[in-house]
Amino acid sequence: MTDQYRPKPEHKFTFGLWTLGNRGRDPFGDAVRATFPPNDIVATLGEIGAWGVNLHDNDLVPIDATPADRDRIVREFKKACADNGVVVPMATVNLFYHPIFRDGAFTSNDPEVRAYAVQKTLRAMDLGAELGAKVFVLWGGREGAETDACRRPDEAVKRLREAVNYLCEYSNARGYGYKFALEAKPNEPRADIYMSTTGHYLGFIPTLDHPEIAQAWEAGKLFHIDLNDQMPGRFDQDLRFGSSNIKASFFLVKFLEDVGYTGSRHFDAHAYRTEDMEGVKDFARGCMRTYLILKDKAAQWNANPEIQSILRDLNKTAPGCPPVGKYSQSGAAALLGHAFNRDKILEKRLPYERLDQLTIDILTGAQC
Amino acid sequence: MTDQYRPKPEHKFTFGLWTLGNRGRDPFGDAVRATFPPNDIVATLGEIGAWGVNLHDNDLVPIDATPADRDRIVREFKKACADNGVVVPMATVNLFYHPIFRDGAFTSNDPEVRAYAVQKTLRAMDLGAELGAKVFVLWGGREGAETDACRRPDEAVKRLREAVNYLCEYSNARGYGYKFALEAKPNEPRADIYMSTTGHYLGFIPTLDHPEIAQAWEAGKLFHIDLNDQMPGRFDQDLRFGSSNIKASFFLVKFLEDVGYTGSRHFDAHAYRTEDMEGVKDFARGCMRTYLILKDKAAQWNANPEIQSILRDLNKTAPGCPPVGKYSQSGAAALLGHAFNRDKILEKRLPYERLDQLTIDILTGAQC
Amino acid sequence: MTDQYRPKPEHKFTFGLWTLGNRGRDPFGDAVRATFPPNDIVATLGEIGAWGVNLHDNDLVPIDATPADRDRIVREFKKACADNGVVVPMATVNLFYHPIFRDGAFTSNDPEVRAYAVQKTLRAMDLGAELGAKVFVLWGGREGAETDACRRPDEAVKRLREAVNYLCEYSNARGYGYKFALEAKPNEPRADIYMSTTGHYLGFIPTLDHPEIAQAWEAGKLFHIDLNDQMPGRFDQDLRFGSSNIKASFFLVKFLEDVGYTGSRHFDAHAYRTEDMEGVKDFARGCMRTYLILKDKAAQWNANPEIQSILRDLNKTAPGCPPVGKYSQSGAAALLGHAFNRDKILEKRLPYERLDQLTIDILTGAQC
Amino acid sequence: MTDQYRPKPEHKFTFGLWTLGNRGRDPFGDAVRATFPPNDIVATLGEIGAWGVNLHDNDLVPIDATPADRDRIVREFKKACADNGVVVPMATVNLFYHPIFRDGAFTSNDPEVRAYAVQKTLRAMDLGAELGAKVFVLWGGREGAETDACRRPDEAVKRLREAVNYLCEYSNARGYGYKFALEAKPNEPRADIYMSTTGHYLGFIPTLDHPEIAQAWEAGKLFHIDLNDQMPGRFDQDLRFGSSNIKASFFLVKFLEDVGYTGSRHFDAHAYRTEDMEGVKDFARGCMRTYLILKDKAAQWNANPEIQSILRDLNKTAPGCPPVGKYSQSGAAALLGHAFNRDKILEKRLPYERLDQLTIDILTGAQC
Repeated sequence: MTDQYRPKPEHKFTFGLWTLGNRGRDPFGDAVRATFPPNDIVATLGEIGAWGVNLHDNDLVPIDATPADRDRIVREFKKACADNGVVVPMATVNLFYHPIFRDGAFTSNDPEVRAYAVQKTLRAMDLGAELGAKVFVLWGGREGAETDACRRPDEAVKRLREAVNYLCEYSNARGYGYKFALEAKPNEPRADIYMSTTGHYLGFIPTLDHPEIAQAWEAGKLFHIDLNDQMPGRFDQDLRFGSSNIKASFFLVKFLEDVGYTGSRHFDAHAYRTEDMEGVKDFARGCMRTYLILKDKAAQWNANPEIQSILRDLNKTAPGCPPVGKYSQSGAAALLGHAFNRDKILEKRLPYERLDQLTIDILTGAQC
Repeated sequence: MTDQYRPKPEHKFTFGLWTLGNRGRDPFGDAVRATFPPNDIVATLGEIGAWGVNLHDNDLVPIDATPADRDRIVREFKKACADNGVVVPMATVNLFYHPIFRDGAFTSNDPEVRAYAVQKTLRAMDLGAELGAKVFVLWGGREGAETDACRRPDEAVKRLREAVNYLCEYSNARGYGYKFALEAKPNEPRADIYMSTTGHYLGFIPTLDHPEIAQAWEAGKLFHIDLNDQMPGRFDQDLRFGSSNIKASFFLVKFLEDVGYTGSRHFDAHAYRTEDMEGVKDFARGCMRTYLILKDKAAQWNANPEIQSILRDLNKTAPGCPPVGKYSQSGAAALLGHAFNRDKILEKRLPYERLDQLTIDILTGAQC
Repeated sequence: MTDQYRPKPEHKFTFGLWTLGNRGRDPFGDAVRATFPPNDIVATLGEIGAWGVNLHDNDLVPIDATPADRDRIVREFKKACADNGVVVPMATVNLFYHPIFRDGAFTSNDPEVRAYAVQKTLRAMDLGAELGAKVFVLWGGREGAETDACRRPDEAVKRLREAVNYLCEYSNARGYGYKFALEAKPNEPRADIYMSTTGHYLGFIPTLDHPEIAQAWEAGKLFHIDLNDQMPGRFDQDLRFGSSNIKASFFLVKFLEDVGYTGSRHFDAHAYRTEDMEGVKDFARGCMRTYLILKDKAAQWNANPEIQSILRDLNKTAPGCPPVGKYSQSGAAALLGHAFNRDKILEKRLPYERLDQLTIDILTGAQC
Repeated sequence: MTDQYRPKPEHKFTFGLWTLGNRGRDPFGDAVRATFPPNDIVATLGEIGAWGVNLHDNDLVPIDATPADRDRIVREFKKACADNGVVVPMATVNLFYHPIFRDGAFTSNDPEVRAYAVQKTLRAMDLGAELGAKVFVLWGGREGAETDACRRPDEAVKRLREAVNYLCEYSNARGYGYKFALEAKPNEPRADIYMSTTGHYLGFIPTLDHPEIAQAWEAGKLFHIDLNDQMPGRFDQDLRFGSSNIKASFFLVKFLEDVGYTGSRHFDAHAYRTEDMEGVKDFARGCMRTYLILKDKAAQWNANPEIQSILRDLNKTAPGCPPVGKYSQSGAAALLGHAFNRDKILEKRLPYERLDQLTIDILTGAQC
């Protein structure tokens, strides 16, 4: 591999313990890889040039560990991180693997399950804080239903709100300073998921007691992103970043770089089930390499004179056209009184086929 | 048809001029039905027992009508509504049919197109207000892209916000008292749509200057709904309500009735292309009939003793389990200190297969 | 439950050991139910009125069983079947669970894996034959790819053909008299599956040395069907039959009954993860009950005078219209010479909205 | 543009009259471009280096043209083709635009519509033959249903078979020598389409009287292909070839070139609705350019030593492993008697992440 695409700490590439540690279990098949111990994963991440490691509570500490075991595990993990120059920017909680969450965690019908889920999350927040994490992710993978007969969806959302409000207060009370990242899931593993898109969470967040905890970039607050790839309309594939749809991955990288995103580039993906341990490294290296290739393409795109000329022309205003801007009585009067010439407006060219072909040329290296 | 399912004004069933007037044009085929003049549609709606009619500006007034034509058309339409006992609860604006909107209306790159789109909407708001509408729908069918090269998505959302803020101010300035309903579209007609789900709009609304204009029910503010049916993963089919997925339609009707929804039951669907004018009536009658059948099923479901007994059991709290509720230091201490017995919690039955089969029994009439 | 919908042997309802024995493992969660021993499943099937049980080799015999273990297990299973009046109409082979099949079985790049897969299948055929099965199912769940770089798809199809030809010869040589049912999978568990639809298999079958082994009904040879339910565009949900889309399930049942299908009604589905053992029974009972409800609806549909009258009218020929039928020179001359009146033809009504509403009425019991 | 990717006749690039002539009509919007007369399209195709032009009957000859008009139009079109060095390799028939086909053509319930559809097709075959076409495409865009209540699907397939058999006989009787290409459609424009995948047609073809007319490549007979691009799970987008999924387009081009496909590279796509006439040319040029870029990448891929070395290793046989091959009694005995060592087999590496990353490197030009 050329030096040009070598990952460095300033690229802020991170992987989850669960991504390199993924053993390839699926609904129809058993694990294909041996357990990859957390401290070994950290060593590998250091070796291949990643900046950080993220984790669920139970990725590191077994669900039935004693307090003494827990403390020893954490101590050794912190040492491994320090030895390998790897930071822990994000933590999260596993509210989906154990059968107790088979009907949801925060939205379960059983108040005891809901209470247990909150307790487990508070402890995971303690763990993350101890490791230095400043972002806490919540993924409601079991917050859904197979039959709407079991609970009304508005009741589920109320319960979710109660829980997240609680967690925010706890973060404040302990001075953890977490930002909470709420993660959607459109398809699996329940028949239907309550918060199936990021948009759903964007609607949910302002109803919280502390809505300042999360937003997507356009509103100024993106602070964490999961990168992977996927063929649309399939199960959750979590393929190596950029390996399925190069163009969509390109526009995502370009957006992050254009807006000056400073958070982790976190790869929430995993190696094919066909891979062995060496292949897991190939997978992780590939995620970072493709990101850097696409980042370089984004710079080429921004520097391309023909592209920039087309974009400038597209956004020109016709002389005499009244502006919209902020509403005012006089502005509205001017706008309502203006005679638009639809045929004339239609003459303006929109050379998007050309613009898109230039993008393809840059992506394939046919034009640099 | 039995009397039991006869639509009455208090059911608040409404149809758009564009639904009964749909001529069956599609990407591969020409219109199959003659023009259905607006005043005739109103007469038909009165005849079949609908409560109201909704419209886009150009469903009633051609885009190139003179002011005099416009006034005459509106006068005659108001008379037709009055004669047939049909109200106009909702109005909207067509920002998608004319080629001028081929690259968007409020989000177009061309400032002149954006200005024209706002002007056209202000006039459509005047029209709706004159007809008595209190809900104004915005559907951004062209607010999308074929290639992300043409504009950054955050720029598009900024433009959309500017426009909607402007419309809200105008509604206030004129004393129209509109509620704005923002309508998403996941699939067509652009390759990608910026606001593709209701969740996206729920996230967008709080960033407006007047966020009080719209919300979904769970937050207490649903005031308009479009009813139709669809096979998932297909183009926008707009089938007769309840005709594709009976169970999903049932849970939707049950939700609206359970929460005491008082707005229009608006059917945004259209007859199969195979139908003639009589078939269009069959279609409209079927929408209302199936709604009333399902409303009746919802009452059966709520009254079913076995269902209610299962639901009660599902929501019982175990003795000694600490509540979550609102965060407090002492509450958190109690919660953190509680020893949960996961195995014991798992013993609680969740008889959802039975609950769902009871639902199927009620839906099929196998059990009443 | 009423007697009317009680399952009886003549309904030929069957379940797989893997369906009742499903432990609810999924990509994000552990098993939620205890092991359900095969002989206990057979007892349960007898109790709830199922006719038969189907199985993969390893549902009954562990992959590493000794020959002596294998023989004892089979002997005891045959006794359980006999004791409970349960037959074994179908057998299949598990070529997907063990990691050895992580890159396919019959289509693997490794010739040794391909040889092992064939050996394992021959032994599964021996097992099925010993239990009396006459249908052998092949599901190529691992016959796919994550990257097309790993093998050309035409090479994969060639290998699949070689294997299936081999199995057919073996069935003939041993006198097993199997029919092979080739089962498609559109979505999981590989990123792409080579034979993703039944149509793909219908195209594949005629290229076999013994193409007489399989066809779909229209060609006269459907002999096995898997029944379950699913929300389109999601992962493989395998929901209780009829629980998601009542109408689609109805038309499937109606088709099977109309054409006089005499094979097993095999439910390849499983209980929700939320269920315990009693819930697994609820699930199995519900599959059969809903089938019988829908079979009863199909009889109502066929007996409905308005439906039958519409169908008769739809298929009437206009006087003077030349027939198509089998090609002949004189027939073609007549057809080419005929002057069709398109406007006149268009006047014929196609009252499909009415026809479909009558179907909804019957399905909901609003009209019997 | 560099010379390297200039299209030449030997590349056999073809476009339909309907692709360059597409006026951008969609379900929600009017035409955005003026009519592009067929003879002008042919001139444009000559100018940009395409080899051929394909057409539906009514792309060239209006549905209500008199015989004299028809003959004049055809004469002038042949001259335009000759003048511009453009051939007509394929013809087809429009059985979807006119309302008469609103419930299907060959599968319509109305025998008169079926007869008219066959007549129209015979005449389209005459037209194609006169223009030199040797491939005749059938696309059953209206052969589907909104409600299964209207006809049984097996009846629809019977009617389709009858029609296609008739067309084959006519082709033979007139000595046209056509190959028929049967084109599937998964989504639009009916709610459900009978032949929704190529697999369905592969199953259908062997039931014809002349099954030799069509097959996909693996069986040795691919003779026509439509090239475009699409985001999965959306409406039929027909985007510029290679513009959405570069990698999938690459593997398609690689397959066609690897197997020595000699037929037309036909682009069944159309320009964005945002384009004017110049943009339509950009679109057409882009289709061909991207094909040639990807063809060049395919050659790089085949010549890459690391890729070839991985592929060789993947396909090696372990010593002592019995072959499968053709069935024989002794071979089966050897196979059944062989002791496979699953753990040993599992040690073989399958470095697909590496293989796929090399593919991404080549596609992006990061490695040549």
